[in-house]
Amino acid sequence: MIIQFLNELNKKNIILASSSPRRKEIIEKLGIAIQVLPSTFEENLDPKDFSSPGNYVIETAKGKTREIAGRVSAEQKPIDLIIGADTCVALGGNIFGKPKDDKDAFQMLKKLGGKSHEVITGVHLMAKKSDNTWHESEFSEVTTVKFASLTDELIQSYVNTKEPMDKAGGYGIQGIGGSLIEGIDGDYYNVMGFPLHRFTSYLLSIFEMWKM
Amino acid sequence: MIIQFLNELNKKNIILASSSPRRKEIIEKLGIAIQVLPSTFEENLDPKDFSSPGNYVIETAKGKTREIAGRVSAEQKPIDLIIGADTCVALGGNIFGKPKDDKDAFQMLKKLGGKSHEVITGVHLMAKKSDNTWHESEFSEVTTVKFASLTDELIQSYVNTKEPMDKAGGYGIQGIGGSLIEGIDGDYYNVMGFPLHRFTSYLLSIFEMWKM
Repeated sequence: MIIQFLNELNKKNIILASSSPRRKEIIEKLGIAIQVLPSTFEENLDPKDFSSPGNYVIETAKGKTREIAGRVSAEQKPIDLIIGADTCVALGGNIFGKPKDDKDAFQMLKKLGGKSHEVITGVHLMAKKSDNTWHESEFSEVTTVKFASLTDELIQSYVNTKEPMDKAGGYGIQGIGGSLIEGIDGDYYNVMGFPLHRFTSYLLSIFEMWKM
Repeated sequence: MIIQFLNELNKKNIILASSSPRRKEIIEKLGIAIQVLPSTFEENLDPKDFSSPGNYVIETAKGKTREIAGRVSAEQKPIDLIIGADTCVALGGNIFGKPKDDKDAFQMLKKLGGKSHEVITGVHLMAKKSDNTWHESEFSEVTTVKFASLTDELIQSYVNTKEPMDKAGGYGIQGIGGSLIEGIDGDYYNVMGFPLHRFTSYLLSIFEMWKM
């Protein structure tokens, strides 16, 4: 949606408050140059304190952007946009983040096998207004993922590849884990950790605010 | 599904009868080493001659593998598996292949904008049996893709990137074209040109035939 504004967008200083190489890759796919500045916000919110997984991941995303906003304001850096995101996997009332270890990854995959689950990414955006205050916006996006039936042997072989370790739900759709997935319903990039299409429509709104 | 058999699979000579860099990338994602040998089969079948888009793409895929099978048999090359694939886009009775030029790409995207279409990939597999004859199998996979509404200006900006040119339907979901897509229903890799999950289940059957 923003392809025709890329030249002007690339005059802006845009920060991604996340160390995820996948989020960086997805945003750069658009042709947008960004700077990565991982947030030091501690990701320790309890999903049980939120009315929905969407609100939980948005709150973590907000924690990331706001920490960066405080830091760049203190350092008086001229930043135009800060992007924060957080992703979780939800299945039958359980929320899965990144596995703690191989055993945890095995248990997560055992639960996901043969079933459909939801991948939820929360995004929080802070855009600098002309009066130098921040305009904040947020949303969450849900994609349904249907896993094939998995034998214990297959799960263990997959865990042994180490791919599951830094990923919510213990799998990577963009890696060898993609072969375990029968299909998805929704935005593929959301399963990778960043809802590309919804993001571009929010970015378009921000771009129009900047033009005013 | 085949992660635990990768070591043994990689002792096999596997040929991809397609020059698509995306198909190679998807199969290699599995950890399978393949050799690319583009088929010289002329892709000039008429979709109208087939009862469904699925049968049409399977027939083109079959043309590719059989051409390679004839060539490697003549050269007495020890090949274990040949993989052929073809992808098209179907919308309201129209079948779209790769656009002929920029104008054709524009017209395709204009038709796809704001609507859901189907991406259909046909796969044909030829596996060498112990008696040195070929075992053939085939399938087609459908994924539904929902496009955002597209303005003429946006379509033209996208066509100008040249990304549409070598892709069925005139877009690449894995590129900047991904931002034009609201969501999909089915296998993402099928939209890229190769149905990863279904392929692995066929590969598993072939692997079991080889073990017997």
